[in-house]
Amino acid sequence: MTVVVKVGGARAVDPAGAIADVAALAGDERVVLVHGGSTAVDEALESRGVDPEYVETPDGVVGRFTDAETMGVVEAVFGRIRTDLVADLQTAGVDAIGLSGVDGELISGPRTSAIRIIEDGKRKIKRGDHSGSIETVDPDPLETLLDAGYTPVVGPPMAGQEDDGITPVNVDADRSAAAIAGALDADLVLLTDVEGVYRDPDDPATKIESVATADEWATLEASAEGFMTRKVMAAAEALDAGAPTAIVADANSEAPIRAALDGAGTTVHQEARES
Amino acid sequence: MTVVVKVGGARAVDPAGAIADVAALAGDERVVLVHGGSTAVDEALESRGVDPEYVETPDGVVGRFTDAETMGVVEAVFGRIRTDLVADLQTAGVDAIGLSGVDGELISGPRTSAIRIIEDGKRKIKRGDHSGSIETVDPDPLETLLDAGYTPVVGPPMAGQEDDGITPVNVDADRSAAAIAGALDADLVLLTDVEGVYRDPDDPATKIESVATADEWATLEASAEGFMTRKVMAAAEALDAGAPTAIVADANSEAPIRAALDGAGTTVHQEARES
Repeated sequence: MTVVVKVGGARAVDPAGAIADVAALAGDERVVLVHGGSTAVDEALESRGVDPEYVETPDGVVGRFTDAETMGVVEAVFGRIRTDLVADLQTAGVDAIGLSGVDGELISGPRTSAIRIIEDGKRKIKRGDHSGSIETVDPDPLETLLDAGYTPVVGPPMAGQEDDGITPVNVDADRSAAAIAGALDADLVLLTDVEGVYRDPDDPATKIESVATADEWATLEASAEGFMTRKVMAAAEALDAGAPTAIVADANSEAPIRAALDGAGTTVHQEARES
Repeated sequence: MTVVVKVGGARAVDPAGAIADVAALAGDERVVLVHGGSTAVDEALESRGVDPEYVETPDGVVGRFTDAETMGVVEAVFGRIRTDLVADLQTAGVDAIGLSGVDGELISGPRTSAIRIIEDGKRKIKRGDHSGSIETVDPDPLETLLDAGYTPVVGPPMAGQEDDGITPVNVDADRSAAAIAGALDADLVLLTDVEGVYRDPDDPATKIESVATADEWATLEASAEGFMTRKVMAAAEALDAGAPTAIVADANSEAPIRAALDGAGTTVHQEARES
């Protein structure tokens, strides 16, 4: 069995439970750990006095514009997070190796440089963005390391393809984890700070345990709000790409990964996406 | 044949010639690229307003004290340098994968936390340094990637061993390259900004072509000054650990790696270290 586990990236969000659980699992299962860290990127930008630039698309979506300087900070912060996470795993006895999506072109897709924006009520083209959408996950670098007994630790950036080569670009870590789980036909565990998806977002007692039909999927989708919308979208992407299950579960519970695989959290089965 | 190539790390020192040459070589030879980047670390510290702290040892050696904050910057800067270098290699058609010495505990040794210093004329112990000395290079992560057709790109930090686990610590990139060449029984090419080691440091016409006897080694060692002393020390470490040759050559020449392997630069043979 292969399992892809997504954890948060900031050291402030203590990944100790997940790390110990990877150590317990890694002897028996093939584990790929995927990390985020956008909060740490925001902090790094702020501490350097770099004002993040937000732009609005014609659809009304507001997002951060990642210019070259910001992209350098993104690479640096994720590099540091990954090094620390690998060291923590080594300390726990896991022979971890860190990879960005650029390494071995593990995660690749076309770079988006010119984006359509609305500025002062006018449509404009703004160039120089460092973003991209995941088109391909190459399983070979991961299979190579897993076969040799290593535990890969993967995070942004990804390989942005341009006419003249590869540029590192920013990518969402949840969607990266989903694409990797799909490419490896692996179970996906998305660890977060709640116990799963709740029908009533304010009431943990309404946690959805299992999602196995199209109707249950519709309920899940309707229940997800705020950041949970992104988790549910990642689950859909993983399942549609071949993951048998996608599980949203609590990072702070005891043995969080094994608990998630044993049915804690919200378990979404591939059948929920077949209609 | 396996060759370990050390290049500078700052993007300002254009590694384009070395990158194109790795692309030309990587089809036929096994290449490991090792990068530095301490200049970029200095710049990053300065731009953040972090004053580097210098300390003096009882032997009179002055060095930078790497506290936790500085170590975070080191990890971040090397992470960014490595990501950019891997992307540049991918652009040149090389399927590169970046590794720090922490990944797979590739480069490890005891962490030095408490160091003896002289402060105000008194001997003191100062704790919290993030440095270490290379004790072991594990060839497995590199062999795994090379066997699978990838070109590993390696740089600081290394895995600092403590009683309670692994801490990333700073390490010299030249010495890292030397230790890797020794562990892989590979030729070592140290690319720099001069054509080799000159008997008269101011006169390129006095370049030492080849060093193959103990006497020639003595001349080499006596000729090296300034930063070249470190290159010669790295060459000695590589040869003593099993590298057949260690070559100091010009990064800015045409096809610098192949030129170095063909006898440009200063080629030191293992026999020069046997006496």
